[in-house]
Amino acid sequence: MQNIRGFAALDSTSPLVPHQFVRRDPRENDVVIDILYCGVCHSDIHMARNEWKNSVYPIVPGHEIIGKVVSAGNAVKRFKAGDWVGVGCMVDSCQHCDACDEGLEQYCQEGLTPTYGGFDRHDSQPTFGGYSERIVVSENFVLSVPEALDVKAAAPLLCAGITTYSPLKHWNVGPGDNVAIVGLGGLGHMGLKFAKAMGANVTLFTRSPGKEQEARRLGAERVVISTDQAQMEAVVNHFDIILDTVPMQHDLNPYLTTLKRDGTLILVGLIEPIEPTVHSGPLVMGRKSIAGSLIGGIKETQEMLDFCAEHGISCDVEMINMQDINTAYERMLKSDVHYRFVIDMASLTSSFTE
Amino acid sequence: MQNIRGFAALDSTSPLVPHQFVRRDPRENDVVIDILYCGVCHSDIHMARNEWKNSVYPIVPGHEIIGKVVSAGNAVKRFKAGDWVGVGCMVDSCQHCDACDEGLEQYCQEGLTPTYGGFDRHDSQPTFGGYSERIVVSENFVLSVPEALDVKAAAPLLCAGITTYSPLKHWNVGPGDNVAIVGLGGLGHMGLKFAKAMGANVTLFTRSPGKEQEARRLGAERVVISTDQAQMEAVVNHFDIILDTVPMQHDLNPYLTTLKRDGTLILVGLIEPIEPTVHSGPLVMGRKSIAGSLIGGIKETQEMLDFCAEHGISCDVEMINMQDINTAYERMLKSDVHYRFVIDMASLTSSFTE
Repeated sequence: MQNIRGFAALDSTSPLVPHQFVRRDPRENDVVIDILYCGVCHSDIHMARNEWKNSVYPIVPGHEIIGKVVSAGNAVKRFKAGDWVGVGCMVDSCQHCDACDEGLEQYCQEGLTPTYGGFDRHDSQPTFGGYSERIVVSENFVLSVPEALDVKAAAPLLCAGITTYSPLKHWNVGPGDNVAIVGLGGLGHMGLKFAKAMGANVTLFTRSPGKEQEARRLGAERVVISTDQAQMEAVVNHFDIILDTVPMQHDLNPYLTTLKRDGTLILVGLIEPIEPTVHSGPLVMGRKSIAGSLIGGIKETQEMLDFCAEHGISCDVEMINMQDINTAYERMLKSDVHYRFVIDMASLTSSFTE
Repeated sequence: MQNIRGFAALDSTSPLVPHQFVRRDPRENDVVIDILYCGVCHSDIHMARNEWKNSVYPIVPGHEIIGKVVSAGNAVKRFKAGDWVGVGCMVDSCQHCDACDEGLEQYCQEGLTPTYGGFDRHDSQPTFGGYSERIVVSENFVLSVPEALDVKAAAPLLCAGITTYSPLKHWNVGPGDNVAIVGLGGLGHMGLKFAKAMGANVTLFTRSPGKEQEARRLGAERVVISTDQAQMEAVVNHFDIILDTVPMQHDLNPYLTTLKRDGTLILVGLIEPIEPTVHSGPLVMGRKSIAGSLIGGIKETQEMLDFCAEHGISCDVEMINMQDINTAYERMLKSDVHYRFVIDMASLTSSFTE
């Protein structure tokens, strides 16, 4: 077992602090990865602060991981030392249920193993995430990073990217479709880019004026201020797909009226514990749907990374040092980030040296 | 213009009373129908009592109409005097929007013309429904009743039947699918029959014990008491499709947990004005959907009638006289009907004679 250093939440009130803990010794199908970059996801805050009431401390957050392979077990076939690789929100699944067989490990019937805050399926030890020097992951959950990608900006693709790419693909977004993205955060800005690259006519729904220029730069043709009655009425029955990325309670009904017949509103944020209320009228009267979608499978995540390489897509990121993580959390809560913080993990070592 | 007699609600408090009103003179594409049977739908009560706040009095309810053609206009091609025909929930639509072009007149972008409680698109006169001697309807909204059908029991197919048939077809229910029907009323009992005839493994969700035998007779393999925790846990992640026919506010969350990944809960009741509350968790974590569906198009309604003839399906009905309508309403509100009242319109004449 190796002592590996990382930034951990020790309880629900402590800010993240430098902490020492162990990584498991690699198994024959494991890849050992030196972490170079790690994106900061909103769920890191929820977990560090036990806002979903399932945190087990200490927690080392981080599931948007980019790094280099240090070594690979004897049974590993696809990776060797020096390869640029990525790890997303999960590091294992049962590998034999219907969902896993279909490449949808995120819906594993026995439950996926989360990259952090879960327990290893073999030794029952806690899993620790990417705010760390190193991670050990089964080959099946390691992604290959295409050469054409900027490795720093690729990190958030592993969560923010796949979470928006997967539903747009699943609901067959293509040329000519009218697609709206709700919210312009880490997920929303990726949704704009993907929908545009898939050929859709893309609209941004936002509550805040002044985002027109940014939205257009990211792929939107139109920006609709969702609190403006006239603007909302202009898009009634307009959208085939609405991808709602807002991770907090909000009224879905105004968006439902802007769906076309047979349109679908897709939630990708867990808007618990507060319940959204919906009227059945728009659903029934227009055969509309409200659906949900969770990240994406491993095969699809690789497809998404390749899609990004092919279409020149990456995440817009702001690099930070490990020591700035608590400030970053506070800025995220104020939506003050364009559009994702990524930790340069080289800063981690200096944190322990100081 | 002809004076035609019918049972009308004159205001929101009056019980239905014999009343005299006019039908429009037939146009060249109209079919004049002598009404022989009319099913009694829950929405008749809502409309007679202005519970949806859009009733315009007097109202002649009834949109599950079976009758015989008396005469047909010069431009009518498919019907002649003596034909058994049906009329459902709508009697007109714009006939030129995308929805109408696709045979989905129920989602007409300019709004369908309801069989009663609406206004004729040409002369703006009120439309009056099936609790009446006669109705005049455009050929495009008249259904042909296959010979094999029992005409009395066919009446409720025009609303209760198509409302359950259409979503089961749209969501591709077929052999081997696990389908649940919520509620065992007029719609629910048709849902059981259709899902069974389509080859699905059919379950009934109900709050009331004691319905096992009935449910099995109607096509269910299993009955789950939705208030019984153990029974509900036994069907977690089990259903591909849940067809929810309950026309009042109820908690959808327990049903969502019983859907498989990628499963869909379909609402066919307008559960306004009280809002159902839903948790986003089950939607996101299993890529599940909540959808709605409204009756069905004219082409599909004809297909459904033919399907019923082919599979020996009809509605279970209790025949009543026109004079018993207010008692029937009260019994329906107590769920005391198996499973649909149908008015023998021959009784109407005697009502006026008395």
